[in-house]
Amino acid sequence: MVEDTNCIFCKIVAGEIPSINVYENEHVLAFMDINPVSVGHVLVIPKGHWSDLYAMPDEQLGFVAASVRRVANSVRNALKPDGISINQANGKGAAQSILHYHVHIVPRTMGDNLKINWNLEPGDMNVITEVAQRIRLQLRPM
Amino acid sequence: MVEDTNCIFCKIVAGEIPSINVYENEHVLAFMDINPVSVGHVLVIPKGHWSDLYAMPDEQLGFVAASVRRVANSVRNALKPDGISINQANGKGAAQSILHYHVHIVPRTMGDNLKINWNLEPGDMNVITEVAQRIRLQLRPM
Repeated sequence: MVEDTNCIFCKIVAGEIPSINVYENEHVLAFMDINPVSVGHVLVIPKGHWSDLYAMPDEQLGFVAASVRRVANSVRNALKPDGISINQANGKGAAQSILHYHVHIVPRTMGDNLKINWNLEPGDMNVITEVAQRIRLQLRPM
Repeated sequence: MVEDTNCIFCKIVAGEIPSINVYENEHVLAFMDINPVSVGHVLVIPKGHWSDLYAMPDEQLGFVAASVRRVANSVRNALKPDGISINQANGKGAAQSILHYHVHIVPRTMGDNLKINWNLEPGDMNVITEVAQRIRLQLRPM
């Protein structure tokens, strides 16, 4: 598998940095964003290292997209938000912070007025952990 | 193919409403958003009708994701933006306006401070048409 030993997401995949996972399969890992822009903010990444959308093989895009659907459906069932935004940033102008392809699943509330670019504000780990569990409970085996 | 005769995007696929297309294959259509949030704003949709991410079959998600990558790469080559945001909205809380799954490709400029929710402001059709052509020129046969 492609890996970049300096990449924080590759270290999460390797288990060298802790993460609060909600879903995993052979190709993909989904875990809670610890700087959440809303309650239930999840990241979905390929386990291999590709820096951005442009670099992703089509097959890997399919693996991630299917997992995003599956996790988003579980977020919906778990949290009953007013909506869910799926966001993926490429390049500094889009505020991409980690150069490992990742898709944001962002639960939305009517009138929350979120921005595509958000400041990284550490979340409440208790809330994050509890929400992760509620999402996991929705993720039954295929 | 699944179709909803009341859906504006299905009418675009059927050719009943004009659109400025930049890419098309058996499964997917990509066309300029005529209410662009930035220059080069493109929409990618499946030709069949599925209301949102939750309803999309995995195979269709893969078709759309591969086309998004391909078109985004062409937008990048055509316009040299500072970044590209990929956005997809589900539900009123995420400001989903058309109930046919669609992915936004939004070219970004440093400091543009865009919001996930944007107001629909008609764009300059000359600019849109010209930008579409520049993107098309990047979309060579596979």
